[in-house]
Amino acid sequence: MLRNRGLEWCLKMRISLIGAGRVAYHLAHALQQNHQLIQIFSRSLQKAQHVAEQVSADAIDQFVQLNADVDLILIAVSDQAIASVIEQIQSYVPNVLIAHTSGSTHINVLNQYHVRSGVLYPLQTFSFERQTDWKNTPLFVEAMTTQDQACLQQLANELSERVYLYSSEQRLSLHLAAVFACNFSNYCYDIANQVLEAQAVDFSLLAPLILETAHKATQNRPEHMQTGPAMRGDVNILNMHQKCLTDAQRHDFAKVYQLMSEQILQRQQHLK
Amino acid sequence: MLRNRGLEWCLKMRISLIGAGRVAYHLAHALQQNHQLIQIFSRSLQKAQHVAEQVSADAIDQFVQLNADVDLILIAVSDQAIASVIEQIQSYVPNVLIAHTSGSTHINVLNQYHVRSGVLYPLQTFSFERQTDWKNTPLFVEAMTTQDQACLQQLANELSERVYLYSSEQRLSLHLAAVFACNFSNYCYDIANQVLEAQAVDFSLLAPLILETAHKATQNRPEHMQTGPAMRGDVNILNMHQKCLTDAQRHDFAKVYQLMSEQILQRQQHLK
Repeated sequence: MLRNRGLEWCLKMRISLIGAGRVAYHLAHALQQNHQLIQIFSRSLQKAQHVAEQVSADAIDQFVQLNADVDLILIAVSDQAIASVIEQIQSYVPNVLIAHTSGSTHINVLNQYHVRSGVLYPLQTFSFERQTDWKNTPLFVEAMTTQDQACLQQLANELSERVYLYSSEQRLSLHLAAVFACNFSNYCYDIANQVLEAQAVDFSLLAPLILETAHKATQNRPEHMQTGPAMRGDVNILNMHQKCLTDAQRHDFAKVYQLMSEQILQRQQHLK
Repeated sequence: MLRNRGLEWCLKMRISLIGAGRVAYHLAHALQQNHQLIQIFSRSLQKAQHVAEQVSADAIDQFVQLNADVDLILIAVSDQAIASVIEQIQSYVPNVLIAHTSGSTHINVLNQYHVRSGVLYPLQTFSFERQTDWKNTPLFVEAMTTQDQACLQQLANELSERVYLYSSEQRLSLHLAAVFACNFSNYCYDIANQVLEAQAVDFSLLAPLILETAHKATQNRPEHMQTGPAMRGDVNILNMHQKCLTDAQRHDFAKVYQLMSEQILQRQQHLK
């Protein structure tokens, strides 16, 4: 038994994962470098098996099967499922450190049911199709005790060069900002793709523009990098674009176009 | 005189630029590699001088000063100014090929006043602070005659490996898509930055996320790369984020949040 000997037990941990989605998949692959993956739980045994096979863990689909002889259980499921998971599992693993991986879910959602609660939030967007650059992915750690915090911090330090102690409130702002920076910008790309597809134009033409826009916003203040007709207050072009969208019956895109343009214009006037 | 000897005169061209903004600035720098910059016009002589000095051209602030002994005049001004510019300059340079650099402005805006009209549209976002990767920047060419088209095409081929002949209608779709992919995604970064600043959190934490989001959308279909609470239909988190924004009196951001989330949810349901 390596556990319960102060910080040392963190060196080589026995870890189980609840969830077999994108975050769980990438965490499992990253954690198996230094640690032993014990069980992967998913309501779909097939999904659990898919991940478990790749990291030499056991797949389970019932919480009663959870092995209590582990150092850490990571809950990497959708936010809305976290409370239900902790409520169901805590009696099977009462003494195990359990951490969720969510940006917006408060640590108290775990702590109301379970004493040894923590958070390990990776600020990144995960896809099955892509490798994760863990070293550059900011990781945010929170725990109820300094010992559990130190343990999660050490784990995080193995994965990434950017580890931070953040409260649940700070993490929520971060996730909210991430929704704009990642989810909504991706939806903007999606709209662009649909606009081009309607004209049989290849989306790959936009790749240099998309990459340059992202690079320059991360190297300068985004408000100073704003370009385009809304920023210039070019009403003719704004109207022309709106007309294109409504003519094409894309009133949904026209709504986005109008709202974003109005706000960009106001923002630039405010900055002047 | 190298001009008016078929295509050959394009080899080393005498070029003037109307405009001293970001596009003009980067075009002037790129074009001076192979060609001679003659005049840079801006209503602000100071701005004209700033660019002209760097490319050994003359700065002017009156259209009557335009030198008619050039092969090409590029109009790189805001869309709303193009018609007024061509109307004012065409009598001074009646035989010169004049091209604008706009995505959304029809070639006819020039051609209604001037016979030898063309377009050279770079699909990129330009900043004074940043170098332009011209080789990878898609360039879209249009002209009224095959000879002028060949001339602009050759010029474009010198700058970029991605040159396309596009009609004004095709170019408009492209620019409209670019507004979503570039201007609106940048505004999403700007909102993210403002959300974090309000909590004194460093925007640079989002850099890996922003870059990964951009990279994966350009290497896959963006709708398949969508992540986040709206995509998962996670109503609790959506409401929590909306509440954060309204509590912070950012009703403008809350509007964007709601509209984008609704559409992402609908899009994902449609894709299922």
